[in-house]
Amino acid sequence: MKTFMDKDFLLYNDTAKKLFHDHASKMPIFDWHCHLSPKEIYENKQPADITELWLSGDHYKWRAMRSCGIDEKYITGDASSYEKFKAWAKAMPYCIGNPLYHWTHLELQRYFDIYEPLSEKTADAIWEKANKKIADGGFTPRQLIEKSNVTCVCTTDDAADSLEYHKLIAEDKSFKCKVLPAFRPDKALGIELWTYLPWVADLEKISGEKIDSYKKLVAVLKTRIDFFEEMGCKASDHGFLYVPYNRATEDELEAIFQKALNKETLTVEEQDKYKTELFRFFAKEYATKGWGCEIHIGPMRNNNTAMFNKIGPDTGFDSICDRNIAEDLSRMLDSLEVEGNLPKTILFCLNPKDNYVLGTMLGNFQSSEAPSKIQFGSGWWFNDNIDGMREQMKTLGNLGVLGKFVGMVTDSRSFLSYPRHEYFRRILCGLVGDMVENGLYPYTDELEDIIKDISYNNAKNYFGI
Amino acid sequence: MKTFMDKDFLLYNDTAKKLFHDHASKMPIFDWHCHLSPKEIYENKQPADITELWLSGDHYKWRAMRSCGIDEKYITGDASSYEKFKAWAKAMPYCIGNPLYHWTHLELQRYFDIYEPLSEKTADAIWEKANKKIADGGFTPRQLIEKSNVTCVCTTDDAADSLEYHKLIAEDKSFKCKVLPAFRPDKALGIELWTYLPWVADLEKISGEKIDSYKKLVAVLKTRIDFFEEMGCKASDHGFLYVPYNRATEDELEAIFQKALNKETLTVEEQDKYKTELFRFFAKEYATKGWGCEIHIGPMRNNNTAMFNKIGPDTGFDSICDRNIAEDLSRMLDSLEVEGNLPKTILFCLNPKDNYVLGTMLGNFQSSEAPSKIQFGSGWWFNDNIDGMREQMKTLGNLGVLGKFVGMVTDSRSFLSYPRHEYFRRILCGLVGDMVENGLYPYTDELEDIIKDISYNNAKNYFGI
Amino acid sequence: MKTFMDKDFLLYNDTAKKLFHDHASKMPIFDWHCHLSPKEIYENKQPADITELWLSGDHYKWRAMRSCGIDEKYITGDASSYEKFKAWAKAMPYCIGNPLYHWTHLELQRYFDIYEPLSEKTADAIWEKANKKIADGGFTPRQLIEKSNVTCVCTTDDAADSLEYHKLIAEDKSFKCKVLPAFRPDKALGIELWTYLPWVADLEKISGEKIDSYKKLVAVLKTRIDFFEEMGCKASDHGFLYVPYNRATEDELEAIFQKALNKETLTVEEQDKYKTELFRFFAKEYATKGWGCEIHIGPMRNNNTAMFNKIGPDTGFDSICDRNIAEDLSRMLDSLEVEGNLPKTILFCLNPKDNYVLGTMLGNFQSSEAPSKIQFGSGWWFNDNIDGMREQMKTLGNLGVLGKFVGMVTDSRSFLSYPRHEYFRRILCGLVGDMVENGLYPYTDELEDIIKDISYNNAKNYFGI
Repeated sequence: MKTFMDKDFLLYNDTAKKLFHDHASKMPIFDWHCHLSPKEIYENKQPADITELWLSGDHYKWRAMRSCGIDEKYITGDASSYEKFKAWAKAMPYCIGNPLYHWTHLELQRYFDIYEPLSEKTADAIWEKANKKIADGGFTPRQLIEKSNVTCVCTTDDAADSLEYHKLIAEDKSFKCKVLPAFRPDKALGIELWTYLPWVADLEKISGEKIDSYKKLVAVLKTRIDFFEEMGCKASDHGFLYVPYNRATEDELEAIFQKALNKETLTVEEQDKYKTELFRFFAKEYATKGWGCEIHIGPMRNNNTAMFNKIGPDTGFDSICDRNIAEDLSRMLDSLEVEGNLPKTILFCLNPKDNYVLGTMLGNFQSSEAPSKIQFGSGWWFNDNIDGMREQMKTLGNLGVLGKFVGMVTDSRSFLSYPRHEYFRRILCGLVGDMVENGLYPYTDELEDIIKDISYNNAKNYFGI
Repeated sequence: MKTFMDKDFLLYNDTAKKLFHDHASKMPIFDWHCHLSPKEIYENKQPADITELWLSGDHYKWRAMRSCGIDEKYITGDASSYEKFKAWAKAMPYCIGNPLYHWTHLELQRYFDIYEPLSEKTADAIWEKANKKIADGGFTPRQLIEKSNVTCVCTTDDAADSLEYHKLIAEDKSFKCKVLPAFRPDKALGIELWTYLPWVADLEKISGEKIDSYKKLVAVLKTRIDFFEEMGCKASDHGFLYVPYNRATEDELEAIFQKALNKETLTVEEQDKYKTELFRFFAKEYATKGWGCEIHIGPMRNNNTAMFNKIGPDTGFDSICDRNIAEDLSRMLDSLEVEGNLPKTILFCLNPKDNYVLGTMLGNFQSSEAPSKIQFGSGWWFNDNIDGMREQMKTLGNLGVLGKFVGMVTDSRSFLSYPRHEYFRRILCGLVGDMVENGLYPYTDELEDIIKDISYNNAKNYFGI
Repeated sequence: MKTFMDKDFLLYNDTAKKLFHDHASKMPIFDWHCHLSPKEIYENKQPADITELWLSGDHYKWRAMRSCGIDEKYITGDASSYEKFKAWAKAMPYCIGNPLYHWTHLELQRYFDIYEPLSEKTADAIWEKANKKIADGGFTPRQLIEKSNVTCVCTTDDAADSLEYHKLIAEDKSFKCKVLPAFRPDKALGIELWTYLPWVADLEKISGEKIDSYKKLVAVLKTRIDFFEEMGCKASDHGFLYVPYNRATEDELEAIFQKALNKETLTVEEQDKYKTELFRFFAKEYATKGWGCEIHIGPMRNNNTAMFNKIGPDTGFDSICDRNIAEDLSRMLDSLEVEGNLPKTILFCLNPKDNYVLGTMLGNFQSSEAPSKIQFGSGWWFNDNIDGMREQMKTLGNLGVLGKFVGMVTDSRSFLSYPRHEYFRRILCGLVGDMVENGLYPYTDELEDIIKDISYNNAKNYFGI
């Protein structure tokens, strides 16, 4: 019996151990997609306690607590920090097989030197020990990033964002980790949402331009992309329930945009046309800049209207959609490719039923512009667990070229999430270690390099940091 | 090499063995969803032979026999009991990897003390030994239930059912197992089916009311729900090809109902509107009563018209549908939640592609009303096998809280099916045992309790028996 | 640690080894679905070098090379044979977990006695050794087929094909392997494609008939089926993006056919009606002849318009579609069954999300005409890998009767692909070996026979060669 989460966690044979300890674990981290706040990185404040670090914004933990029947008071309510921590500790043992169980204990081990399992029984001792550690220092955002050996972070930024904190961070030469913006124009594409007109107003404000036509909208967005480029941006990011493909003329687009400005309801067809053509504009710009284009497909957001009205978005009420995505996605990518405008693209699916669709879609659009120019993104959000990451890598291995994979991102809002890279690398080395020990792949020097590439070098070269 | 199906069947390490033998196997059974006949339980007749017990109604076995090319004569035809048994024995060895192989041998072991594999060669000896055992006694419905340590059974009952046998069983104090009705109004929702008008007539008969309007229909159904409640009902159950969500006004519902009464063909939209609103009515009632609401999604029934015309429904001609279910299901649950009418709900999917959709849907609607108020139902029907049950539990573990799972049901028409609970518990202990021995979860006292909870206590508490 | 791809490749215990070495490996091969060229078999030319054998037509390898960022010059361009081989060797180590890695090394081992892993470092030595072997002889199409112990091959032939090479091969008594045509009328069904009218012209030419009506089309196709039957045909094959089900009258079909002849654009509904009824005609004919009907569902072809315009179809730009297929497929099969016209049918899905749909569809239409008259086809194309084949077999085992499975096909254009049968049999024996050693199935004489059946006998009996 292996010891609970010891140094060989997830490494079941000598090859896996060697690949991880001698190679993967020694590589730095390039976190090319996360939701860290540049403001918090700049301000670099001391956290109050482990509840602030762990439970103040982590909707994954909130969901798990709600699933245990814990009252909202102890989740997002007015209970004390101690009570909330205690509630989380109480939920912990029921989370058998959940990545939260492993993340929690990896974070306790790596940042707090705590090796006991968290439960109601151990909660008080851990609360005290962890908070003493935090008080002793080393837990500000920048300290956590540096301690985690991160060389570069790409945040997630709205097209109308001033990027002021990115500027301030860049000016501070004492902080070694690069903090780059990533262009995420979801609000620009979300023409059917209540957020659209306020966002147009934000864009008018930041650009100083009156946006009264689709043509003007696109022109202003182009200036934003140029600005992001100046600020060192290497990546864009899009979230889609599904990728639409419904082409439209400029006149149609103007008419749709005017309807939106007039607060008229748009048909689904109109929304799809607008999204299709605006995304095609974005993609062409990314191709010109050489940015990587991340496409995240499949979240169904804000399913619980009552809770949305109480506590807003990104609070743990999202789940997985199951639209058919293959045909429109193929047409979209083809329409770009045929015009020479297809950027480096990373396709992520939230629904694992789409693994084989994406894993084969890649191969339709590869080229010599980059090794695996079209990538299959790592197991993400609800798939960011042992099974989900293994399945994504096995799918990529079966259908494409695993050795050219750009690997892991945290996709997190927390400065304590870097052990997710360790988790990923252990799973990778475990998977490949099994193949080698089962006689399915030979152990060679090349293999050691490939493991290092997937851990770090492939992403570094792909995005060109 | 492990011995074929010995006492450590499916238990591959010491932790798994300990969890099963010392904990899971000692818990009684609460079979909260099955298709046992209350009439048969009440009448408690002696079975003629093993063919009657095994092959007279089990369409799972019939399918397997047809897949072996066996003539219908030996399946549902006029062959003798002996010939039918022999035909089944002949099919058995080809069913490599099929749960029927394991169920058959678990039943031979547990009820007949027979440990040989069944095949054409062993058929005669097993036929004699098993029939002698049956003749010796202990094989009536009640004896089998008691021998299996079942504390409570929930049957499946039409809204128009008189529940007369439930009454008679309840009056007989010599039988310790509770036999409760469960409310299954599929015929009330199946407005497009030939069964609808005869069912309305049944409902008129049992209620003594003329049902000439939708309003009246709903009023009468409410009285039925009250009656089921009086009879100890704790659970309702619904089967859906897909869960529709298309809202309608009362006037629309009246018009649709009148069309149905007049035998006019309804559009799919009309069917969906009727089903949406009638299900919403039911759900609200269940929430008021505190019942659990089981939703079974995905069977495509009676695919073979020729055989349907010959031998009717539930004879082995059903398969798995693949509709997209996420969006309408989400809207349906949300429409109930926002009005405070969402009952405790257990979501089952027949298509395993929906595992991740359901596994994440749960988290949208949890609350402190019950630990995992919204449940993900165990691998069911075509998923009621080692892979299917493991996948369901791994999905729940990855996405939700496995420790609060209400666990297994037989979903069976046979009194010999209780070893399916043993099968499930072995798979559960095998899964968790692997996690522990691989260092993914610590062995604690809490774990032993959680295993007992999933085996029995969680369901007991959830339904409140 | 197991040695890399040694004699016990994929066999992890004694049972697996025994089943494979003593039983599966000794059976001949019946390759009932492939894309080998009868012309090449007849002409039986000496290949120039390993690049011709490996890289001149294998779009699987081309995709992998493109995914590594290799320039098209070294793939389908004008680079030398040596350069192309070198490029493939360079790509090889990155293909961790890809079946190409195993196929490549199985082919090097079985046909060239080369046991080193292929990489940039070993490329030159392997290039020389392999080419010397080829020059020494034994690598013509017929020699490779005979060396591989193949008793019968079914090619893939258009309805308008003259089958002249099949005639010539049949006349040559020196070649022991039967080479039978298989009827693949995809061009007849593809009424919406640019290939349709040229194909009608081909059919007119081969039949000497003017095809100016749907009625005439069907009459001529019937003569083609009779001709294929005379030529020894045992199988037909269809590729569908999805199987439509939309019934039409003869008048409608005539009108649709006339529109097509007039180069008018057909609606999707018209296309579906034409395909539904023409497929129903074909199926009825197959049932009459006793042919097996293979249905391959799910490829989305020619996704990259730019590359299609450059190098045409079947060049590595296809991927997996994700339509919902259950309901129309069920109706199609039922419409045939109810009229007594359902042929022996083998259902293949390209999207593994459909495994459970197909695995349960079978059971709706079995009969005593043949053991598993409706079959679930082996893991195919993108699923033709360890995981894909295991999943298909586990699905069939869980849902149907694995012991009656007709097993593997190469589906290949290459004469070096026969080790794919070995690969399949090793996976089969590995899977069943695990079950036996884990106590899930007893080791019996029947098991040895079943393994031989799945390897060869079931297919032989099913198709009646």
